[in-house]
Parts: sequence; C-alpha cells; structure tokens
Amino acid sequence: MQIVRPTLLLDEQRCRTNIRRMAEKARRNNIIFRPHFKTHQSHTVGRWFREEGVTACTVSSVQMAAYFAEDGWEDITVAFPLNYLEVDEINRLASRIRLNLCIVSAEALEGLIKAGLKHKMYAYIEVDGGYHRTGVEPNDAATIEAILTAVASSPLVEFKGFLTHAGQSYACRRGIDILTVHQQTMQVMKKMATRYRSRFPDLIMSVGDTPTCSAASDFSDVQEIRPGNFVFYDIMQRAIGACTDDNIAVVMACPVVAVYPSRGEIVVHGGGVHFSKDALKQEDGSVIYGRVVTLTPTSWQLPATSMVVKSLSQEHGVIQATAEQCASVKPGDVIGVLPVHSCMTADVIGEYYTLTGECIVMMPKV
Amino acid sequence: MQIVRPTLLLDEQRCRTNIRRMAEKARRNNIIFRPHFKTHQSHTVGRWFREEGVTACTVSSVQMAAYFAEDGWEDITVAFPLNYLEVDEINRLASRIRLNLCIVSAEALEGLIKAGLKHKMYAYIEVDGGYHRTGVEPNDAATIEAILTAVASSPLVEFKGFLTHAGQSYACRRGIDILTVHQQTMQVMKKMATRYRSRFPDLIMSVGDTPTCSAASDFSDVQEIRPGNFVFYDIMQRAIGACTDDNIAVVMACPVVAVYPSRGEIVVHGGGVHFSKDALKQEDGSVIYGRVVTLTPTSWQLPATSMVVKSLSQEHGVIQATAEQCASVKPGDVIGVLPVHSCMTADVIGEYYTLTGECIVMMPKV
Repeated sequence: MQIVRPTLLLDEQRCRTNIRRMAEKARRNNIIFRPHFKTHQSHTVGRWFREEGVTACTVSSVQMAAYFAEDGWEDITVAFPLNYLEVDEINRLASRIRLNLCIVSAEALEGLIKAGLKHKMYAYIEVDGGYHRTGVEPNDAATIEAILTAVASSPLVEFKGFLTHAGQSYACRRGIDILTVHQQTMQVMKKMATRYRSRFPDLIMSVGDTPTCSAASDFSDVQEIRPGNFVFYDIMQRAIGACTDDNIAVVMACPVVAVYPSRGEIVVHGGGVHFSKDALKQEDGSVIYGRVVTLTPTSWQLPATSMVVKSLSQEHGVIQATAEQCASVKPGDVIGVLPVHSCMTADVIGEYYTLTGECIVMMPKV
Repeated sequence: MQIVRPTLLLDEQRCRTNIRRMAEKARRNNIIFRPHFKTHQSHTVGRWFREEGVTACTVSSVQMAAYFAEDGWEDITVAFPLNYLEVDEINRLASRIRLNLCIVSAEALEGLIKAGLKHKMYAYIEVDGGYHRTGVEPNDAATIEAILTAVASSPLVEFKGFLTHAGQSYACRRGIDILTVHQQTMQVMKKMATRYRSRFPDLIMSVGDTPTCSAASDFSDVQEIRPGNFVFYDIMQRAIGACTDDNIAVVMACPVVAVYPSRGEIVVHGGGVHFSKDALKQEDGSVIYGRVVTLTPTSWQLPATSMVVKSLSQEHGVIQATAEQCASVKPGDVIGVLPVHSCMTADVIGEYYTLTGECIVMMPKV
C-alpha cells in the first residue's frame, strides 16, 4: 500500500500465528482461553480469535465490553475494578450477555447493588498477586469475606472465582525471571483455590499477562488465562524476554521529513499521537521510543545494526543515526518503527492496516 | 454534569480568558496572532478564537489543516516539516485556502514540485533557534539558498519568511529562564531578518511556544506568534513558570475505584488512554502524571496539600495519598486530576465537555 503519513501496519500472518500458538497452549493445558482484547480493540481481529475456537474475551472497560458485545461476544470479563457509576451501561450489557465484573472491595459491589443492578452478573474477586496495583491481598480474609457477603446479598450476583494480573512480569528482562514470577503467581492462586474450593467447587482461578503466558508452559494450577498484548507483541515484550523479533506483528510506517547528519539524527513524521509516549528503558539508563526496521514489499526486516527512536514530540519522532545511516535516507523515504508498547500505540492511532492494505477498524474513541 | 467514567472537563471561562489575554498581547505588539490549534483540535474552540478577531491559525498536520479548513479557516500554517508524499491532500487544500508549509530542506520542496504541486502555496523556512529538533541552522546560508532556489524554481511557491519553535523553553523552571530563551530566540530572528529583509521586504518572522509567548511581553523583533498550549495550559506549563494554577482550563474527572490505605494509594479510572503517558519530572527526580484537585459544582479547587498521580497504566491511575487522604475518599467518588500535558491528553481522549455539560467535538482520529 501507498504510505503518505504515519500508518500502523499489521502482519496478519504473524498475528494469526501468535493467536494460534496461545490458543494451542490453553488447549494443551485444558484451560479457558479468555484473551484480553484491549490491545487490538477490533471486531476483525476478534474474529480471528473466534476462528481459533475462542468464545470468551477480556476487556479493560465497560465501553469496550459493549463494543465486542455488538459483534456477538456473549461472555466478557471487564478486567478493571468495578465502577458502579456505570450502572446503566452495566445493566444494558448484563441483560444481553454473560458479563463478568472484577471486584476489589465490598463497597463497590454494594454500591452497584444499591445503584440498581437489574440483571444477573458474575463476580470475580481480583487478588493482588504481587503487582500491588489493584486487588485484595491474598491473606486479607476479612475483605474477601466482606465481598462474598455483598455477593450473597443479591440474587443477581454470582461469585465465579479469583483473578489476578501479574504485571510485575513487565520488570523482567530474562525468560528465567518471568518463570519465577509465574511460579509465585501460581503459588498464590493455588493457595487461594485450596482455601475456597470447598465452598465454591466450580471456582475459576484466572491469570493473565503476556510475559508469563508466553514464557510458561504449565498452567495446571489455574483454569483460565487472559493475556492480551501477545496478539501483536512489541519491543518491550522482546526486552522482557516474552517474544522474539519475529513475533512482533505491528510496525509504524513513518515518512522521513528531515535528516541532520551533523548531529546524527533523522526526523520522521511519527510522534506521541501515533506511538503514545511509552518508553523502554535501556541497560545504560537511556530510554527509547521505538526501533527502526526496513520495510520490504511483503513485510519488514530488522537490520544488523538497528537505529532507535530517541525522542518523540506530538508529531515528530527523532531517530539516532550514524553518518552512514543518515546518508542512506532522504526526505520522502518511508521507514518502519517497531513500537515500544503496541496496546497504547494502537489505542492512540485509532486504526491499522494489513500489509495488503485492508483497514482494520478499531473501537471508536468517543 | 453526571460523571460516570474518565471525562475531560473544560472551564470555558478560563479558556476564553487565556485566548483573550494572548490576543491582546499580540494586538499590543501589533503582530499576527496565529494560534496553534493542535491543543484543542476543535471547531468549537476555534470559533472562540474567531470571536477575538483571529483569522489565521497553525496546525501540526495536513489532516488537521483540512479539518479547520472545513470550518472556514482560510489561512493555515502547517508547522511541521513538509512531507511531499502528501501532495494530493496538499493540492486539495492549496486550491481552497492560503496554505503555508514549513520547509527544512530543498529536497523536500523539490520533491513536492516534482510530485505535482498544482496550486499556489506559501513557504516558511524553519530555522533551528536552539531547540535542535528540526529546522535549518541559522548560519547555514547554503541550505537556505538551496531552499530559496527551489522556491524560485516554481511559480506556485511563494516565500513568506522564517519560523522557529523555541521548544527548549520547556526545560525552564522559572520565568526568568523563559525570558532568557525568549531573548536568544529574538536575537536569532533579528539576525535572520537583517540578513534577508533587503531581498524580501515583506518577510514574516514567526515564533511560537507557550512558555515564551506567555512570559515575554516584547515581540518587536517578530511579526507573528504561534503559541498553542496556552489555550488550556497544564501542570507542566505551571512547573515551567508559564502560567498560574488558576490559568489551567482543563481537568480530568476520574471515578475512584479502589483505596489502599496500607500502602497510601488511591486508584482511579483514568490511565494512559485518557491522559497520555506524558510525565513531569519533579525536583527530587521522581515523575508525576497529574495533580489532584477537588471538583466543585462550578469548577475545581487545588487543595493546600495536593495529591499526585504517581503512575499510569492503560486504564488505571495510581494516586499517592496519606492515610488521612485515603480515608477521605471511597469507590464511587469522583476526583479531578490536572493533566501534565493538555495537548496530548485532549488528543488521546478525543473529546471534552464544558462544565455545563456541552460536548466539545474534536477532529476525528481516523
């Protein structure tokens, strides 16, 4: 396709391979595969999951649940703490689909019931498995009991299980460290299951983050995985040790607009409004915002010595380059940049294209 | 208005005051006020400028120029280096409005002419006044002559003047430092004008960044200013020394979803997809992503001891809080957060609302 401005390209083949590999891993472990759709945010890519037999998904907002419900998804988990101010939208959705909500406090669930929950919903208690962002401390039995009491107070709420997000895996930089995080998470989930399964025989223990779901192979202590980013991967996942360069399925095509050999910089159209401002810290303490690849007629290639994006402003991307690299490009050339965080990149740019030029429409922002 | 999810609110009164103050400064200096519209990206706010007598504007992309041309703006500068791959869109626009493009190399302009420029356009040469992002070095007479030669090669290109963006002012943390940047920029522009005005008597020297345009009062060495962020301001501009807390015209209303007194954290719905990931470095080296304010029925107030947003993920915002502050909020409350960088925040969230609940529609992302 003809690139004229910053354009996010998706290698459908790589993406489908990423989907298939994770679906197979879930099948091998005989667990539910409930992929997080916040990365691709698209009906089209959702259907590629369906073609692999996936029937349940995870989203990060009630709005996103509504978007996927529109395309026939009937079993959706909102993996974000319940905000009962959204009671109207929750009621609309719960009347149509199996809506699973994430509970981190009794107050929030009581608030929802009091605000006028009208349809059956399913509750997962989020536990904090070590990431310390949201979730109940696994040993905080009092809070868990308070939530279970709130659950029991309404015939419209059914308790399903515990979920956690091991976001601390993003700090890993080697596969072995990811496996350590995975083992710790599994221990927490196993302990919780042991404690509560006698009361709730159908308890579902659910985990989900791309690093552990990519690196680990044994999920015998849980019943469900919810990874999301793996659908595209990115250079952060590569740095974490969760994927190879060849697994990365998205690239931003950026027109070169200026070359400054004297200071070793190439400026492209491609800034924070296209990539987001997510940065990847390097070993030397510096941060980068992307890695340059060579676009080919059918895909892209990582050169032996890859240039990096050293800064982003709203529309500008500044690439660090040697004199030789500067001499090899000119304004009007188009170069590829692998994003740091594909979820945020897709979100801010709002659409992407397959290599054959098909536009992949995403959830509207507003 | 009823807040149910992260919602960017605009205090129209503060915004109109910001517009009026800058318009008056331009009038006092007898210079063209060509505000940058990349911050608000809205026809509605553009009309507020028009009510102050503004008839020319600046944008950061050709797409954004097309969006404002749709609403009757007939004199638009794209303050981003010309990308001649966009020749078709450039031709469409140049046929309808006075389109000013920013040139940083002869190659790019030659590329445009060769690609088939069909309508009259106006060229500004961007000079690098010290920010070192894009632009020709002021003393690089050879490059400037090469660009002027390219201009002269086509009857469809008319040279208008030099523009610069003193983005280095964003590193300032005191008003006095901003004025130093301003003086240095003025010296560069004066020197350029002295050098070229005899050949181009109608030369326009154009500057534009919110810190210097806010802090300085003397613009006698230039003919045009192009600030943008001042329309909303934000806590970064406050830290730079370009505005007061009372000038900040946007706030994100965020529902509280979890409170963790034991670790002194409040979690709100409000993450990178709402704020962008732009961070503000504090004196102690830490970074923050927003500052908490108390929403009032008619606006908001900065409390004596303000909490800060210490981290953002895609949907979560984590606020650092004392035990007392934690005790003062509960899930379902709505708190206000002043953004770090209002341009990026408005861009990623995609719409905002006045305090009376009027939705301000923005340029569509795709």
